[in-house]
Amino acid sequence: MPNGAQILISGLVDGGVRACFANPGTSEMHFVAALDAVPEMRPVLCLFEGVATGAADGYGRMAGRPACTLMHLGPGLAGGLSNLHNARRAASPVVNVVGDHALRHKRLDAPLESDIGALAGTVSAWTRRTYHAEELAGDVRQAVAAAAGPPGAIATLIVPADVSWSQAGEPPAAAPPPAARRGLVSVDAVTGAADALGSGESAALLLGGDAVRGPAFAAAGRVAAATGAKLLCETFPARQERGAGRPVAERLAYLASGASRQLAGLRHLVLAGAASPVSFFAYPGRDGGLVPDGCAVHTLSAGTEDVTAALEGLAEVVGPGASPVRAAAARPALPSGDLTAESAAAVIGALLPDGAIVVDEANTSGIWLPGATAGAPPHDWLTLTGGAMGQGLPLAVGAAVACPDRPVLALVGDGASMYTPQALWTQAREGLDVTTVVFDNGSYAILNLELGAVGAAPGGPRARRLLDLSGPPLDFVALARGMGVPAERATTAAEFTALLKRGLAEPGPLLIACRVPALGL
Amino acid sequence: MPNGAQILISGLVDGGVRACFANPGTSEMHFVAALDAVPEMRPVLCLFEGVATGAADGYGRMAGRPACTLMHLGPGLAGGLSNLHNARRAASPVVNVVGDHALRHKRLDAPLESDIGALAGTVSAWTRRTYHAEELAGDVRQAVAAAAGPPGAIATLIVPADVSWSQAGEPPAAAPPPAARRGLVSVDAVTGAADALGSGESAALLLGGDAVRGPAFAAAGRVAAATGAKLLCETFPARQERGAGRPVAERLAYLASGASRQLAGLRHLVLAGAASPVSFFAYPGRDGGLVPDGCAVHTLSAGTEDVTAALEGLAEVVGPGASPVRAAAARPALPSGDLTAESAAAVIGALLPDGAIVVDEANTSGIWLPGATAGAPPHDWLTLTGGAMGQGLPLAVGAAVACPDRPVLALVGDGASMYTPQALWTQAREGLDVTTVVFDNGSYAILNLELGAVGAAPGGPRARRLLDLSGPPLDFVALARGMGVPAERATTAAEFTALLKRGLAEPGPLLIACRVPALGL
Repeated sequence: MPNGAQILISGLVDGGVRACFANPGTSEMHFVAALDAVPEMRPVLCLFEGVATGAADGYGRMAGRPACTLMHLGPGLAGGLSNLHNARRAASPVVNVVGDHALRHKRLDAPLESDIGALAGTVSAWTRRTYHAEELAGDVRQAVAAAAGPPGAIATLIVPADVSWSQAGEPPAAAPPPAARRGLVSVDAVTGAADALGSGESAALLLGGDAVRGPAFAAAGRVAAATGAKLLCETFPARQERGAGRPVAERLAYLASGASRQLAGLRHLVLAGAASPVSFFAYPGRDGGLVPDGCAVHTLSAGTEDVTAALEGLAEVVGPGASPVRAAAARPALPSGDLTAESAAAVIGALLPDGAIVVDEANTSGIWLPGATAGAPPHDWLTLTGGAMGQGLPLAVGAAVACPDRPVLALVGDGASMYTPQALWTQAREGLDVTTVVFDNGSYAILNLELGAVGAAPGGPRARRLLDLSGPPLDFVALARGMGVPAERATTAAEFTALLKRGLAEPGPLLIACRVPALGL
Repeated sequence: MPNGAQILISGLVDGGVRACFANPGTSEMHFVAALDAVPEMRPVLCLFEGVATGAADGYGRMAGRPACTLMHLGPGLAGGLSNLHNARRAASPVVNVVGDHALRHKRLDAPLESDIGALAGTVSAWTRRTYHAEELAGDVRQAVAAAAGPPGAIATLIVPADVSWSQAGEPPAAAPPPAARRGLVSVDAVTGAADALGSGESAALLLGGDAVRGPAFAAAGRVAAATGAKLLCETFPARQERGAGRPVAERLAYLASGASRQLAGLRHLVLAGAASPVSFFAYPGRDGGLVPDGCAVHTLSAGTEDVTAALEGLAEVVGPGASPVRAAAARPALPSGDLTAESAAAVIGALLPDGAIVVDEANTSGIWLPGATAGAPPHDWLTLTGGAMGQGLPLAVGAAVACPDRPVLALVGDGASMYTPQALWTQAREGLDVTTVVFDNGSYAILNLELGAVGAAPGGPRARRLLDLSGPPLDFVALARGMGVPAERATTAAEFTALLKRGLAEPGPLLIACRVPALGL
């Protein structure tokens, strides 16, 4: 008779889960012991829970189906919550398996006891604690279905240790729960959008979620070609398809002032899988909503509705034969001279390989990247969906596990990289083909910028020091090598070019530390 | 007119808060800008929130009054929760200041929006969101009072950005809330304990919380001397006073089998500031409670009751003139030969300086430490109270900030150190006198042990690999140097001796990486 842990892993594999990003503890030892009998499940050890959850997010975005995490009671889940927040915002499918004390142990208030359900509830669309091994098979099926969506979501299954170690009969074969279906948008929504776009007034489509990839994006391109509408993309898409031959959607800027400029003059904004745009933060005296006065907002597809069907329907209505405007193949020239965020972006644009997966947590150092890579060969662009720093390095781990045949390029700021540097060890451990570029400007540059934007006092030496990372300087080459990842420093554009070529050509990980000036925005 | 952030910082300082362990974001920029005007508050930048909260815990344990943290919305707080779990178990005083979106921004569901209150509630005794700048002064007073206790607790104040940036009149002078008082135990509790200890049957006092330090501990020593009762200490005390000249209390073992041996044969167990002992984890077929059959449990002092008054009263009753048994001064000889967890413990026992603060997250590599240091000069021992790994390095930061004139020795396992390695950067940044010893055994050794203890299958190669940290090996010297902390490797007992002498003699941080065999327990 199998025990609960064996039933659990088998159920995950039956549901299509193939990777487990794990940071286990004692309560999860039966799960760990059961892994050897299930070769379909790839266990990936992470040294911090935030790496496990960020990796599961990256895996889900690229594989389109959930990986699972394995974490240790409430404190383990707590460590993973920040990146689960990002995963929730990305609508990534993730199944969390969180071990718990044996049920009869819970009332004893042992040191690790805490309210796991409350923690899970802050990020999960589905949370359940299993009380009997016999119930595990059904609970796992539901967890996987809840995570898989569409849309993808976070499902958290809390598994007490005694449920893992108890034996239960082989679960009866059961059909998986029927796959969720996205709701169809109404004809009114389609005709409303068509009327707005055909009004002759200035109009844009704002794309989010699935609308910036695959057939939905192609349809959006046809709509734009037929109507002259501008294609915009939400500020932080989970996964945007970009590059030569693909439709072009301009991402809304992070700073409210920039986004307002992009939206200025519009009379119609049609939302396709995106919410009405709001600023990332509030600023004194500014409205949080970004839609300009006089601009009507039309919802083509909201929430869980089928944005692909909606955009295809809209394209049928507005221009059945239209051919989308596609990005031309174009690369920047390889720069020489100083290494700056701008010249680094040109190097990346010049060298980005076909099929690359770009993980972008470069923050202020990344502002030239979209322009420099717009005409590079087709690639996917993954962004910081929830604003919780420390997503980039783990996301790259998961993307590389999901897509072992594609090069992964992780572009991260120095500050951002230090929330989850342990991801580098997992890159080395698993031999993942990730090239990491750390933009080392010695500061929380984005906060220096925000300090002024929120109207705070200019900041004296103590305030400035709280945003400064230069004393002592972080030596990212030493950090990476300390975790088994080869690493080099680039101080000129030419050095960066040589190193990026090497990283993209070699299998396995490489970290390139780029010393760049902080932006004087 | 001051703004909310200025009122907030002034209120913290008025309440005795002198250190702010910060990982700020945009919503906290007014707080940051206000720091320059308040020299009494020392801002300490941490590169990850778990470092900030662990440091606040260490500060609170040593200073006896709260530090504050500064964290960025829900995802920032989430990153700090694991070490807040430990702080809660330690009854450490901590005030969390968590920034939030401006109130009118919250309904817009911007990317960082999440349920901060739900997260805070899992660890906090007191949680409040301030809605108006005028209310901040009162809320800060209450937060500090709630944190200060006694007993110490976690208070979380959620401060929307617009409350920080709004101006308010100078708050009226107000007396601080009356200090909480611990409840007095009943005469019955004292006489019941006295009767049990005087029964002539085998008896022990189990000390927890404040009972292992100061006058409470001295009184416990007198009780033991007068009655012959054994003094035991809870497994994971927040702060245990130890060393030559102090009473001796034997810590209950982490493993249930060991603790059961320590408790075997007792007929009376008197609880003083400790809960009735339970095993850390449940094991198949074992009871979670550790009190042996036939042993009566007597509660002298529970929960928030005044354990010092209780023990002093008990000492008055059972032996007014008794003199406590005190640990004799004794140090192990400096060992030669191989470096092992056992020989390293002897080196530490031989060299531990007077007044040292020892932070112990050495896990399996630490089992010889209590014996080797029992007769060292007086020192404080801080342990992993809540079982959430990654406490040691941050705790050392906070202890060093609280006690700049005392040497801090952080003893951490390789696995444990990798949850919060960013603490090393803050050590370097602040020039903290912390000597860190990493016991590098290349594995999650405690889990190899637990894998057997929970009765899981022996584990095949995939299971074993999930507990293995040796591929690639972690180079702690490179990691530390990468964060600005000088570091060296010790491979023999003699090398470790020389390095530990250097670390203890020099100001500022040093990390010593000790390659030791994993225990074959």
